[in-house]
Amino acid sequence: MPTVKMVEYEAATGRVKEIFDDIKDTRNIDFIPNFWKTIAHHPPTLDRVWSDLKSIMAPGRLDTLTKEMIAVAVSVTNGCTYCINSHTAAAIKLGMDNEMLGELMSVVGMFNTTNKLADGYQVEADVFPPVE
Amino acid sequence: MPTVKMVEYEAATGRVKEIFDDIKDTRNIDFIPNFWKTIAHHPPTLDRVWSDLKSIMAPGRLDTLTKEMIAVAVSVTNGCTYCINSHTAAAIKLGMDNEMLGELMSVVGMFNTTNKLADGYQVEADVFPPVE
Amino acid sequence: MPTVKMVEYEAATGRVKEIFDDIKDTRNIDFIPNFWKTIAHHPPTLDRVWSDLKSIMAPGRLDTLTKEMIAVAVSVTNGCTYCINSHTAAAIKLGMDNEMLGELMSVVGMFNTTNKLADGYQVEADVFPPVE
Amino acid sequence: MPTVKMVEYEAATGRVKEIFDDIKDTRNIDFIPNFWKTIAHHPPTLDRVWSDLKSIMAPGRLDTLTKEMIAVAVSVTNGCTYCINSHTAAAIKLGMDNEMLGELMSVVGMFNTTNKLADGYQVEADVFPPVE
Amino acid sequence: MPTVKMVEYEAATGRVKEIFDDIKDTRNIDFIPNFWKTIAHHPPTLDRVWSDLKSIMAPGRLDTLTKEMIAVAVSVTNGCTYCINSHTAAAIKLGMDNEMLGELMSVVGMFNTTNKLADGYQVEADVFPPVE
Amino acid sequence: MPTVKMVEYEAATGRVKEIFDDIKDTRNIDFIPNFWKTIAHHPPTLDRVWSDLKSIMAPGRLDTLTKEMIAVAVSVTNGCTYCINSHTAAAIKLGMDNEMLGELMSVVGMFNTTNKLADGYQVEADVFPPVE
Repeated sequence: MPTVKMVEYEAATGRVKEIFDDIKDTRNIDFIPNFWKTIAHHPPTLDRVWSDLKSIMAPGRLDTLTKEMIAVAVSVTNGCTYCINSHTAAAIKLGMDNEMLGELMSVVGMFNTTNKLADGYQVEADVFPPVE
Repeated sequence: MPTVKMVEYEAATGRVKEIFDDIKDTRNIDFIPNFWKTIAHHPPTLDRVWSDLKSIMAPGRLDTLTKEMIAVAVSVTNGCTYCINSHTAAAIKLGMDNEMLGELMSVVGMFNTTNKLADGYQVEADVFPPVE
Repeated sequence: MPTVKMVEYEAATGRVKEIFDDIKDTRNIDFIPNFWKTIAHHPPTLDRVWSDLKSIMAPGRLDTLTKEMIAVAVSVTNGCTYCINSHTAAAIKLGMDNEMLGELMSVVGMFNTTNKLADGYQVEADVFPPVE
Repeated sequence: MPTVKMVEYEAATGRVKEIFDDIKDTRNIDFIPNFWKTIAHHPPTLDRVWSDLKSIMAPGRLDTLTKEMIAVAVSVTNGCTYCINSHTAAAIKLGMDNEMLGELMSVVGMFNTTNKLADGYQVEADVFPPVE
Repeated sequence: MPTVKMVEYEAATGRVKEIFDDIKDTRNIDFIPNFWKTIAHHPPTLDRVWSDLKSIMAPGRLDTLTKEMIAVAVSVTNGCTYCINSHTAAAIKLGMDNEMLGELMSVVGMFNTTNKLADGYQVEADVFPPVE
Repeated sequence: MPTVKMVEYEAATGRVKEIFDDIKDTRNIDFIPNFWKTIAHHPPTLDRVWSDLKSIMAPGRLDTLTKEMIAVAVSVTNGCTYCINSHTAAAIKLGMDNEMLGELMSVVGMFNTTNKLADGYQVEADVFPPVE
């Protein structure tokens, strides 16, 4: 059960309402996801997280779909149910098909194994051969 | 300190030597990274992990650089030092520049925060508005 | 689904019943939370965990509310649903209001990002300037 | 080994130099910790992280020492070496003595056990007795 | 909610059907667990994961029950609900009784505490006394 | 760098000295590992952790070697360097050979992948077919 009461769109005022409208516009959706309605209980957190996320997810040297797939990889590695669902949905909306999801999951699965093998055997950093 | 003795290239024989040669060829490198020399102490693990990794990292619907950046995201989220170093080096070799690394890290950092906020507030799954 | 059958208060005998009564007294509650009813299936675990927790959570140099907020921070970082719910409830009962919860969550969120940036870039330990 | 070259104070210009000076002033230190010199390689990340951290760590309903101890709890749970060292040092500077550190560690240790027991047994959420 | 549509046994063809039949035979069950029906959406992942798991879980120097208990320990430490349930059930089927489960959980709980204390205090590796 | 000063055996008195002697006797070693010298800075933690660990690691329905291998599995999954080294050494002392270590690591690696695939696809709990 959620640990705070969400701020519904209809009840939002001032800066919270402005951010809610910006979320709808930027994401091209007509509802406010529960994540944002929840953190709105503490407006400075809403402000900071939305502002950070908006600038970080804007297309740059990496496109937004690549960034969403990285968000899925992080969320899966952390085991965050809400985040896995929302970022997978977002990536699908941006064009990730079943085959791409299959590859993404296989990469995430693979390196969760090798991470543990490298730690488990306490593998030492490679000394790269000298460049000539 | 490593928990097993590594198998050096010069000491490798049979299937282990075949795999070591395949690693050099596939990766276009002329040394065997410590990870592979370490897991070679248990040949079935070497065989399985290399064979899995080779097929998973081959270009598919996602290109190899994207896959390496996802490997970095997983390794950072798990805090695996060896893996962070080796996958970051591999991604740089494949063309990731400083700006791309900056974006990758900012995405990984961002969603480690939102993952914890979503869990911390126990945010419930969104009920998507009905499609008309 | 739970992996063992819980020991209900009415069915508890001997040392388990004594501990159940101590939990009610110490916590000033009139029911046994599922966590304790569950680990009671293995009495030495119940005994050890309750005895450890009781002494660790007693007020010391840190007060009990601060300790409960730290318990929330740990549980959120681990993503443990049961624990997030129970420690958040306990902290609220001890006086944590919405604003304090908002600050707690923002701190937990923040350092989950910086932890990953520090690991992700493999930042080296600071060499502190010499004290004169 | 760090994955990017740090920006030294002497080489900093513009917005990066402004932030470096603000870090020195706000923290009352006369050097720039490696964390900040590292993320300065990507100025928008430096700007965002410093600005977020500065406002989150300002005294509010929770004092700064409590926030630093929560930062230690998060960093320990994540196993981030750089962060454990820097937040422990910061908390000591703010007044945390050995006894408080001992209590902090015992709380973090305790709930890492109970988190795993709650998950391990798949304990179900408590149904609280009805309020009369 | 699952992020892909499962492949039901009746709909399976070719290599997927062969693997489904092998799962039923090897595990001596007459249904396909959801995990396998899910990853079957990406046949190379199904093929790799089943083939790896089948050879890793075969009795070797460690018996299959010991391996399943280790699988429970890993799944609990990662907090993976599906996996905790399925590996606990598998271990029970192989002979793990309540007392063994209690011991397993107490070991997993214990070392989650000591792992955090060792990291939290940044304990240095032991220098073993010289062997005479 | 360690965050507290260790208590050396020669400097130990009272309850701390008693525990140090018990560690030497129980473990049949003639030095005190750094972990114990470190947590001795806070005697109630030393007392609690040693007493818990001693009873949990005593042979029961699971033998001590199996328990040490589970400790390795937990430590690897958490990425705790000190703990991986010390529990691997302890398991080797108790009879774990290279082949057993290879199997242990392959099991830990395997289920770190499947844990992430199960979470990543949000696989739903199996509905077991009715028992007749």
